[in-house]
Amino acid sequence: MRCRVYASAVPKLWNDTIESHRREVREAILDAAATLVTEHGLASVTMSQVAERTGIGRATLYKYFSDVRAILVAWHERQVASHLAQLVAVHEQAGASAHRLELMLGTYARISHEEHGSEIVALLHRGEHVTQAYQQLSNLLRNLLAEGAKSGQLRDDVSPDELVIFCLHALSAASSLPSMAAVRRLVSVTMSGLRPPKR
Amino acid sequence: MRCRVYASAVPKLWNDTIESHRREVREAILDAAATLVTEHGLASVTMSQVAERTGIGRATLYKYFSDVRAILVAWHERQVASHLAQLVAVHEQAGASAHRLELMLGTYARISHEEHGSEIVALLHRGEHVTQAYQQLSNLLRNLLAEGAKSGQLRDDVSPDELVIFCLHALSAASSLPSMAAVRRLVSVTMSGLRPPKR
Repeated sequence: MRCRVYASAVPKLWNDTIESHRREVREAILDAAATLVTEHGLASVTMSQVAERTGIGRATLYKYFSDVRAILVAWHERQVASHLAQLVAVHEQAGASAHRLELMLGTYARISHEEHGSEIVALLHRGEHVTQAYQQLSNLLRNLLAEGAKSGQLRDDVSPDELVIFCLHALSAASSLPSMAAVRRLVSVTMSGLRPPKR
Repeated sequence: MRCRVYASAVPKLWNDTIESHRREVREAILDAAATLVTEHGLASVTMSQVAERTGIGRATLYKYFSDVRAILVAWHERQVASHLAQLVAVHEQAGASAHRLELMLGTYARISHEEHGSEIVALLHRGEHVTQAYQQLSNLLRNLLAEGAKSGQLRDDVSPDELVIFCLHALSAASSLPSMAAVRRLVSVTMSGLRPPKR
């Protein structure tokens, strides 16, 4: 009996350790590549530099990624997933839907503002993972807009679908604004558009 | 004396006629090229087709334009100038600034909506003439926003410069909306964002 426990338990632990080690290396590669792009620009980054900065051999690096572009795609997928997680967390907070909507719009505008000018983002922003993330973001916003319309806090004379399109286009201005203070004013102006019109 | 009058007046008339004829041919070339692009797509249009559709010889066409792209650039410049003229006309109407602003936003949104999907526009939209037109449009909007803020019809807690950026981004949604009714609702939502916030 003891032998069977040993045989089933230890390899599992061992596998977990390997798996967690691989994940850590992978994360370190993504970080190293993103830093190198920020420092030297997209065009000049090589696999050798990424390996050196990560602290692994080139041969090891090629076991994880076939080229620099593949690393950057993985990096951007991680970024988009993390942004979406932030937005989901805000959506799941307690509170009135109009308030949660304003927080979500603020988070989204801040992310757009911070991403502005990123070469990696410009390169990868048409990827499938971005389209999916926008779809999910749109669904979350639509929920809150519908809830808010029902409770009378937000306008009900325009469909939530159209208001989502309005929000996302209006907030895309965040990337051309010079400061976070201006981004906050943009969010507040956008929210005014979503409140019930004065009768 | 008679001879001098003849010598100075007739050639002028003659030149005017030539000039006006050249302008007409040029306009006809632009129309023909734009129609061909709409019918057959950008990639397939040739100088021979444009000449034939205009009703002139190929050799004549080459006296006006060196290639299809040059024709399309001229066509797009004419489009942008005509859109700007429409916007200027609305700006110069009599009436309260908030009302004129709403009319201008409506005109701009309609133009964006109608242009959507145009291959020529997608190709040429980064040209210098477009940048200049946007600059002029921004100036007109900024005027009305500043006037409206002074008269209390529009919000004065955010600068006209930032509100122009908000307007133009919000209305860029017009190109992804399915109907003019939806475009009108977008303009109305955008206007709500520009009115003084409820105290």
